[in-house]
Amino acid sequence: MANRVDGRKLDELRKVVITPNPLRFAEGSAMIEWGNNKVLCAATLEQKVPPYLIGTGSGWVTAEYAMLPRSAKQRVPRESAKGAPNKRGIEISRIVSRALRAAVDLKKLGERTILLDCDVIESDGGTRTASITGAWVAMALAVRRLEEMGQASQGILAHQIAAVSVGVVEGRAALDLNYIEDAQAETDMNIVMNELDEFVELQGTAEKRCFNRTQLEQMLAMGQAGIAALFAEQKRALG
Amino acid sequence: MANRVDGRKLDELRKVVITPNPLRFAEGSAMIEWGNNKVLCAATLEQKVPPYLIGTGSGWVTAEYAMLPRSAKQRVPRESAKGAPNKRGIEISRIVSRALRAAVDLKKLGERTILLDCDVIESDGGTRTASITGAWVAMALAVRRLEEMGQASQGILAHQIAAVSVGVVEGRAALDLNYIEDAQAETDMNIVMNELDEFVELQGTAEKRCFNRTQLEQMLAMGQAGIAALFAEQKRALG
Amino acid sequence: MANRVDGRKLDELRKVVITPNPLRFAEGSAMIEWGNNKVLCAATLEQKVPPYLIGTGSGWVTAEYAMLPRSAKQRVPRESAKGAPNKRGIEISRIVSRALRAAVDLKKLGERTILLDCDVIESDGGTRTASITGAWVAMALAVRRLEEMGQASQGILAHQIAAVSVGVVEGRAALDLNYIEDAQAETDMNIVMNELDEFVELQGTAEKRCFNRTQLEQMLAMGQAGIAALFAEQKRALG
Amino acid sequence: MANRVDGRKLDELRKVVITPNPLRFAEGSAMIEWGNNKVLCAATLEQKVPPYLIGTGSGWVTAEYAMLPRSAKQRVPRESAKGAPNKRGIEISRIVSRALRAAVDLKKLGERTILLDCDVIESDGGTRTASITGAWVAMALAVRRLEEMGQASQGILAHQIAAVSVGVVEGRAALDLNYIEDAQAETDMNIVMNELDEFVELQGTAEKRCFNRTQLEQMLAMGQAGIAALFAEQKRALG
Amino acid sequence: MANRVDGRKLDELRKVVITPNPLRFAEGSAMIEWGNNKVLCAATLEQKVPPYLIGTGSGWVTAEYAMLPRSAKQRVPRESAKGAPNKRGIEISRIVSRALRAAVDLKKLGERTILLDCDVIESDGGTRTASITGAWVAMALAVRRLEEMGQASQGILAHQIAAVSVGVVEGRAALDLNYIEDAQAETDMNIVMNELDEFVELQGTAEKRCFNRTQLEQMLAMGQAGIAALFAEQKRALG
Amino acid sequence: MANRVDGRKLDELRKVVITPNPLRFAEGSAMIEWGNNKVLCAATLEQKVPPYLIGTGSGWVTAEYAMLPRSAKQRVPRESAKGAPNKRGIEISRIVSRALRAAVDLKKLGERTILLDCDVIESDGGTRTASITGAWVAMALAVRRLEEMGQASQGILAHQIAAVSVGVVEGRAALDLNYIEDAQAETDMNIVMNELDEFVELQGTAEKRCFNRTQLEQMLAMGQAGIAALFAEQKRALG
Repeated sequence: MANRVDGRKLDELRKVVITPNPLRFAEGSAMIEWGNNKVLCAATLEQKVPPYLIGTGSGWVTAEYAMLPRSAKQRVPRESAKGAPNKRGIEISRIVSRALRAAVDLKKLGERTILLDCDVIESDGGTRTASITGAWVAMALAVRRLEEMGQASQGILAHQIAAVSVGVVEGRAALDLNYIEDAQAETDMNIVMNELDEFVELQGTAEKRCFNRTQLEQMLAMGQAGIAALFAEQKRALG
Repeated sequence: MANRVDGRKLDELRKVVITPNPLRFAEGSAMIEWGNNKVLCAATLEQKVPPYLIGTGSGWVTAEYAMLPRSAKQRVPRESAKGAPNKRGIEISRIVSRALRAAVDLKKLGERTILLDCDVIESDGGTRTASITGAWVAMALAVRRLEEMGQASQGILAHQIAAVSVGVVEGRAALDLNYIEDAQAETDMNIVMNELDEFVELQGTAEKRCFNRTQLEQMLAMGQAGIAALFAEQKRALG
Repeated sequence: MANRVDGRKLDELRKVVITPNPLRFAEGSAMIEWGNNKVLCAATLEQKVPPYLIGTGSGWVTAEYAMLPRSAKQRVPRESAKGAPNKRGIEISRIVSRALRAAVDLKKLGERTILLDCDVIESDGGTRTASITGAWVAMALAVRRLEEMGQASQGILAHQIAAVSVGVVEGRAALDLNYIEDAQAETDMNIVMNELDEFVELQGTAEKRCFNRTQLEQMLAMGQAGIAALFAEQKRALG
Repeated sequence: MANRVDGRKLDELRKVVITPNPLRFAEGSAMIEWGNNKVLCAATLEQKVPPYLIGTGSGWVTAEYAMLPRSAKQRVPRESAKGAPNKRGIEISRIVSRALRAAVDLKKLGERTILLDCDVIESDGGTRTASITGAWVAMALAVRRLEEMGQASQGILAHQIAAVSVGVVEGRAALDLNYIEDAQAETDMNIVMNELDEFVELQGTAEKRCFNRTQLEQMLAMGQAGIAALFAEQKRALG
Repeated sequence: MANRVDGRKLDELRKVVITPNPLRFAEGSAMIEWGNNKVLCAATLEQKVPPYLIGTGSGWVTAEYAMLPRSAKQRVPRESAKGAPNKRGIEISRIVSRALRAAVDLKKLGERTILLDCDVIESDGGTRTASITGAWVAMALAVRRLEEMGQASQGILAHQIAAVSVGVVEGRAALDLNYIEDAQAETDMNIVMNELDEFVELQGTAEKRCFNRTQLEQMLAMGQAGIAALFAEQKRALG
Repeated sequence: MANRVDGRKLDELRKVVITPNPLRFAEGSAMIEWGNNKVLCAATLEQKVPPYLIGTGSGWVTAEYAMLPRSAKQRVPRESAKGAPNKRGIEISRIVSRALRAAVDLKKLGERTILLDCDVIESDGGTRTASITGAWVAMALAVRRLEEMGQASQGILAHQIAAVSVGVVEGRAALDLNYIEDAQAETDMNIVMNELDEFVELQGTAEKRCFNRTQLEQMLAMGQAGIAALFAEQKRALG
């Protein structure tokens, strides 16, 4: 069977390396290098919650995703220069927020917010799944520090979470699309799972051609295998 | 088996009625009443495309979703009053845009844009799937008029598209969640399909509890049946 | 005497029908269909007032007017897409606010705000007067509910208020201009009156040719008659 | 009959002085001092028109009204600091624009725009009528310069325009309300007229109590007399 | 030695006149006319401080600089029309703020804010130094009133502050550049000093050609002399 | 003499390392690590110029400076979240722009724009001078590539430019202040120089206490020595 544009097999992940705590100030941080992607993830702990949670005893997890201007071939203008919100960025921020929130026991977190900043330094397809996978490590490091300081209950981190993209390229399911593959994919799907092999979020979009049940099964199988490898790298990074 | 909050069976759709062309000015329009939801969908034909498509011979389809202030129990402030974009609205607009785009042969459309406005007049859970299902009828009416005027090639409308939500409520898969069910669902999934039983978009989110493979299978089966009923109502509306 | 573009006599009102409480959630609502205009009016009761009224014992009434994108022949872009406030909408919102405020005894209302949303679904000239006339019914229904719940003093609604446009078209005064007449009118005047035949707001603008005292007298007489008919329809809607 | 708060008679105008061309750069300008009001009016000639007028041979007149931060007792925040448009300023800008447009033969102006900036340096009630009255002088000076340079047809300035406020204070009609009277007025009306005693704009608002036909007649008579005095001062300023 | 474009010697200041308290409402104000520049400076006293100073016992001084639309040959659009902040205005506002803050003993001021509005009515080069020099007088008048009312400690005004521009034009250092000189200057430097001949802010920019140490010395000497003259005029204005 | 907070001598620079071309896509890029500061500088070449330069044959250089949210101890909110421009960032962007523009012969550049993005990944005082020093290397690499491709005239890069901060801390002049020193400095000055020992920009601000001529001399001497060391590191990075 013919190989992919970068020589990988259809079910082969690009190389992933997560470096813990590259930042001095963040309560937890992680640099994830995934193929040519490079995303800096920072976790901030805030002693406050959104207005509608005040007095509920429950915490909150939210994320912001953005690309540095020259993380892409074509320069991405800053929002301040465009005078308009970046709609793609808003959609991705919401997906990353939901994924990370599913990892935390919000009651045990208490009335605190964990804010995850995912800033893309270099991009090559799959930055939203890299953001989720790296931000989970940044969050785990921040929670560990919080627990070590004895300021919060144990067990805040309820699940391990990672994400990977799969797609249908030239009629064949493939794992972890890079930018060139992503641009020509018929279908692109992001899979977020936890350590129990359960789904946290599943988002598949027919970019050029709709996908059928068989292709869905193939993509889910490939994604599940990829996520197992990502769980291992996350654990390695946490030491 | 115990019935649902509004007495429906687990695989039962709420009543759906689509009224064609309620608006005088739009090139095509549809009012979709789906349970207590009421969404006004209007299709506008513009003789221009976004800058990056000029000269390609290809057209564009895009959508804007918004809620009227008192379509909900709690008044939704207008963007002009808040001074900030509505992030939920932006995410939904992007999903509706992608779904409708998958229905059209953009080459046959030519350098035109079809802009779909989905304005929610009353809401009760599932306004994004109602928007997709109703906007497809508005678009079909606009394309029909365009073709009848002999101004464009035939076959612009390549697929029939409809969408429905499914979820896991109290551990059981259920079709077409209303607002109360949606608020207490463990998982919420939106399924967009075409007339060939293929997927256009699949977006499942674990709101409270992650979902497993078995639950996914159940939800997909329920969704497919629901969409078949929606296809029938769309055809009835088009006469 | 030659008839008007739609066959009406110079002092003839278009058909007006007000439907009470079309919305499930609003504290009061009204759909006003006036010729081809269709405006959805919703009243929201808020248990707060603007900062400068806190502690004064006095309430507030304010309104927001907007057009749905395809309520007009030429699509009206949303503010969020234009990135700029709609200046015409702001001017009309202020006029509608002042008119409705004149109907209420703000001291008896107490420290509450009544917020009126007027959303134009179809337009054909005269949407601001339709908004005032319909919003008064929505407000009356909300106040009635408030009084029935025994939560407020009686007599909050001090006046009945309605509005109509008059103009000078081809040198002759005419009542209730439609879009075509409005576009070619020399002068356009909006008259807001109460049940005592007093003026609440009078706004006349020479669009193409200035108007004299005689024309002013004719327009005021026509307007007063038109408003009497609107008062009757408002009462019918309130049952 | 009891005198007013500043000793004036009911039909007495405050002192008005218009100084021509106080600015070095504007094509025409005027400083109007009216009682304690002080408004700087500048006319700018632009060799372009809004998009919808291109190719029609017709010109445009528009105005922008704003208050300097300390023109009022309570500092008025700048829009850039508030991050929101000033709705009162937008409404007044639109009224001033319409009034000045009625003074010009737009066809003779040709495809040019006259932009009038009205900046309030000190305020004491009636700044919108002062803006209209002063801006007319600034515009007349700019048109005179244009005609003297032989760059445009003669007769661009079709009418003389001035504006004054009248009101009902403690049940009595009064001319030219100052800030204290304006705050306690039952009704406030702005009258814009041309040199033929015709109305350009008439805007009356019942601030506290609705007004009847008799009061309207009294206010119109007072306003007409006041405007005659303003026409004289405008002519004096133009020399 | 050849004279400058307006006949001045290289070390000659343009004529400067400061008029105290031209405004009725501001706690202190000054109109500074400097050559053809005309800047209105208003000081507002607010009984509050920015959030990070609450409870520190320390006050704050800040400034806002803006140009009226026709203060310049080319009309300056208002921010509200451009929909974007004026970056030059923001930079100047920050410089003026820092300069004025250096004049005040913030502890003695107590938890109050002095807000200085500098609005340019006419411009001819050097409006930022005119703003600083004029705003100091406005602030001194406001502080004097505050002290006279016995509401604050004595000695709030710790320093006298004035500012002047210098530059290198055609290779020669020159004091107080007007607009024409500023446009062709190789280097432009703004010097802010106090009454002890110390520097508050020094900002030199090589617009066309970098400057050397000798030129720096010449500019500083000229600036110091110019500021002495400005101190005298400030004192004259304060009486 | 007592050492500084981090043990350095008064005239000692922190360690500076510049890494060339860390980014795949930018036409030129540099990572500058300066003490604990880490700034990513990217140069983008655009084949267009601002409107007022079209047809002049002259190019343009501009810069944008921003901090990543967790580059600082206290998280810096994104502009998109705050809904307001970052005024400090705008002031620094303008200073960086002017400094880099002074390095280029704009006529030889031709009608192109070099846009420099300076994104702060970690901060510890002095990020604006690090941005200037690093961005010069990014720009030099982009210009080198442009010249090697034979698409532009030689000699576009007219000057070498670097920047350093100096200050007065506890009464003594000191080179290259870190964050702690910067916070307690009486005076802070940024010096930008070229390879001829000339000044490009000089900006000194008395933060807590004004500075005199002697202190100015000491700071300029220290700054000049520091910049010589930076020039050497820039050359090393360019190879």
